[in-house]
Amino acid sequence: MTTFRWGDPADAVTLPSAVRDLLTAALGVTGPRPAAEPTLAPPAPLPGFPGLDVSPEARLRHAGGMSTEDLLIGRSGAVPDAPDGVARPTTHDEVLEVLRIAGEHRIAVVPHGGRTSVVGGLRAAREGYAGVVALDLSGLDRLVRLDETSRTATFEAGVPAPRAEELLNAEGFTLGHFPQSFEFATIGGFAATRSSGQASAGFGRFDQMVVGLRAATGAGTLDLGRAPQSAAGPDLRQLLLGSEGAFGVVTEVTVRVRPLRELHYTGWSFPSFEAGMRAVRSLAQDGPLPAVLRLSDEAETMINAATGASDAGGGCLAIVGCFEGTDPSDRLAEYGGEPLGEAPGKAWEAGRFRAPYLRDALLDAGALAETLETATFWDRLPETYAAVRDALVGALGDGGTPPIVMCHISHVYETGASLYYTVVAAQSEDPVAQWRAAKTAAGDAISASGATITHHHGVGRDHRAWYATEIGPVGVSVLHAVKQATDPHHVLNPGILLP
Amino acid sequence: MTTFRWGDPADAVTLPSAVRDLLTAALGVTGPRPAAEPTLAPPAPLPGFPGLDVSPEARLRHAGGMSTEDLLIGRSGAVPDAPDGVARPTTHDEVLEVLRIAGEHRIAVVPHGGRTSVVGGLRAAREGYAGVVALDLSGLDRLVRLDETSRTATFEAGVPAPRAEELLNAEGFTLGHFPQSFEFATIGGFAATRSSGQASAGFGRFDQMVVGLRAATGAGTLDLGRAPQSAAGPDLRQLLLGSEGAFGVVTEVTVRVRPLRELHYTGWSFPSFEAGMRAVRSLAQDGPLPAVLRLSDEAETMINAATGASDAGGGCLAIVGCFEGTDPSDRLAEYGGEPLGEAPGKAWEAGRFRAPYLRDALLDAGALAETLETATFWDRLPETYAAVRDALVGALGDGGTPPIVMCHISHVYETGASLYYTVVAAQSEDPVAQWRAAKTAAGDAISASGATITHHHGVGRDHRAWYATEIGPVGVSVLHAVKQATDPHHVLNPGILLP
Repeated sequence: MTTFRWGDPADAVTLPSAVRDLLTAALGVTGPRPAAEPTLAPPAPLPGFPGLDVSPEARLRHAGGMSTEDLLIGRSGAVPDAPDGVARPTTHDEVLEVLRIAGEHRIAVVPHGGRTSVVGGLRAAREGYAGVVALDLSGLDRLVRLDETSRTATFEAGVPAPRAEELLNAEGFTLGHFPQSFEFATIGGFAATRSSGQASAGFGRFDQMVVGLRAATGAGTLDLGRAPQSAAGPDLRQLLLGSEGAFGVVTEVTVRVRPLRELHYTGWSFPSFEAGMRAVRSLAQDGPLPAVLRLSDEAETMINAATGASDAGGGCLAIVGCFEGTDPSDRLAEYGGEPLGEAPGKAWEAGRFRAPYLRDALLDAGALAETLETATFWDRLPETYAAVRDALVGALGDGGTPPIVMCHISHVYETGASLYYTVVAAQSEDPVAQWRAAKTAAGDAISASGATITHHHGVGRDHRAWYATEIGPVGVSVLHAVKQATDPHHVLNPGILLP
Repeated sequence: MTTFRWGDPADAVTLPSAVRDLLTAALGVTGPRPAAEPTLAPPAPLPGFPGLDVSPEARLRHAGGMSTEDLLIGRSGAVPDAPDGVARPTTHDEVLEVLRIAGEHRIAVVPHGGRTSVVGGLRAAREGYAGVVALDLSGLDRLVRLDETSRTATFEAGVPAPRAEELLNAEGFTLGHFPQSFEFATIGGFAATRSSGQASAGFGRFDQMVVGLRAATGAGTLDLGRAPQSAAGPDLRQLLLGSEGAFGVVTEVTVRVRPLRELHYTGWSFPSFEAGMRAVRSLAQDGPLPAVLRLSDEAETMINAATGASDAGGGCLAIVGCFEGTDPSDRLAEYGGEPLGEAPGKAWEAGRFRAPYLRDALLDAGALAETLETATFWDRLPETYAAVRDALVGALGDGGTPPIVMCHISHVYETGASLYYTVVAAQSEDPVAQWRAAKTAAGDAISASGATITHHHGVGRDHRAWYATEIGPVGVSVLHAVKQATDPHHVLNPGILLP
């Protein structure tokens, strides 16, 4: 990651002319908004953490994550979330050492994987602490063990996803986990945030792949997972998964792997989002279930066609990715689907990791662009879909040009599915406040409709309030109790996850 | 349940002559051990709990569970685990009221579902409490909602499994959850203990079916589950599942249901347990995966044939239950399997819930009979299998006739499987001490081999020590912290799950 921009500068996107036209004509975007040079506050002095780097470059590189709010703040020149230094341990014991030193000196510790958080997961609270240290896990970078009999692989937490795939592919295996953050995210980050990949229908969510976990906590080491499943009490793996560094630092993850197989993508068109929803629900409940199954609403289908990202005309585009031997064509046709051949699938596959680059270009051009997501049960899905869309349109269109709000179903289950929204609007004078208002409206709509505040982005700082509502006061007190037990000095990612 | 015997007296088993001969000839069983009349201690006085029954009949009916140790103690005439009375609330709010009153008067509360625990899960500690009340959940007996769109059903916790199936079957659905305790166990009990059914390969474990939970805790109500899956923090459903009443009383469970489909059973013979293990692993990892998949070792196959429970000859018998359209024959044959047709499958299906009745007859006859189970990853399975078998043979054969120790793989996963042992020996003078020694040897062997102390029976009182080793000191302190938050008066099932 470069500073306040996604990924590799060499892969930066230039806006297609169709997009530029759309920004001006439809959204009233007025002009470019170049990023200011960032200014770092002087660092607080830090004690001798393993692998400590207090250079301005290291501090900037670890300043905040990749939410639009993070980027807008960074682009304004302010760097409120820069750590005072970066510790880079290379072993589990050194991670324990970081926690020990931090507890002793009351330094807030912010674990960093690929730094792809889009929910403020790297923006820990500074108030009440003598300093903030970023705990960079890139030094824990080994494949510890590949067990071909059990089909499990044990990775250290800092292994980047592409490296993990490369190591597994060499032995004929795959993890099959391809979230949009794939090119930069790490195995430990996937675990800590309950990541979900684009092929989740075929491979499951990351939390469903994890059979073992090792974590460094403020109370010592936690080693979990003696069997695929167990009735030995609550599943404590599931308490660490999604804990976002608030209970401990995941240092090692054992995941189920599968033989490498090719996926074939095709596009399908449905007359309406409702019709498509019935079709994908049917596949999720009665099969045959593709490994990748996505359904765009009318707005997303139209915008993708207008901007050249797909050539699907009207209706709703579905992307269907199948292993050889799985053919859901009959079922899709039965529900009103029209086959569009391989082209839309190939186009989607080619662009599947490109959206965050496009966002940077949109922000440069003076547009506001962000995504958010939720999940709920099938019977509530249409209501939630409309409520969130209406909330976004209402909040962003208030007194200005209406925004573009697009949505797709990105992950399906037998009992429900996720909804993933993309929003583009003209930036106002204060785009941070503008997006916060829209995000609040959307979060309130999600919460009121009974859906979960996040299906795969995590809680971080941005979803805390709704998360507290979602699990209720008893749930919150349980989490506080767990934190007290695992982080007695309260130095682990303060302000993240828990209110 | 009748007192200290399994199930319905009308279904009691008379030992087949082949079994009687085997007991005498092979095990040296010397003669019948009739049960003594139980003697109840006078009850401690209880405050006015909802639906309170302090009759001796009610107290006896709620005295302990169905482990062989529980039964042996009860058959000796001692009833150390009888509650002082039985509260029978009929609503969630009444359960909260039971917990409030219990906290005020320091009464231990033991939640009761179908009372089928085989791990001492109903034998709460009495020391330090003014009394013990059984919390009978049979009054929470409604199907709250069937959502045919999302394919979920919400049951109150006390609904017995057969009633749940009946209600679902009437609408064309099934839960597909058929553990050996099926005829008596309840939905709430399945959740609290992470039950696993005989068709788990097809339908998943119970904990995998649960999408929503409501629990009454000492700190108030916990309502969990807004979506099939979520990235909103740790999955707190998975903290309640397996909590065995120590953190709260599950009062309502929302489960995924599926359309009712027929299963067809066949038998297969493998030349060795090792060959069969490779075959079932292949099906678990590469498919086609049957819904029911079990593999007996040589001893179990031989004993079942000798006692007329199956007519498979030598080798190892596998029972394979498939939905129409799934045919694993080619794969089974590829791994050395010989088809035995439908007869072994039909015999297994007919006897699938009968083993606990047979145990009562064996105990009457002077034999010791019990089961235990574990799970681990495939690469460790052969070593664990042998270590536990050897530990049982060593402990029970020490100074007497060698026991019969049989084993089968009962549940398979991509990354591992469970091992289920059945042990039959001649009762010594002190069969409780005799079994405790064998159980200790087996538990130590399981723990030392790195496997989990229980795949589906739960922790209860009997597995506490190994469980503590399994999750380590940090894990134990996490559980204590959760208990402090949810059970501040420490009245919920004291001595169960947690050391």
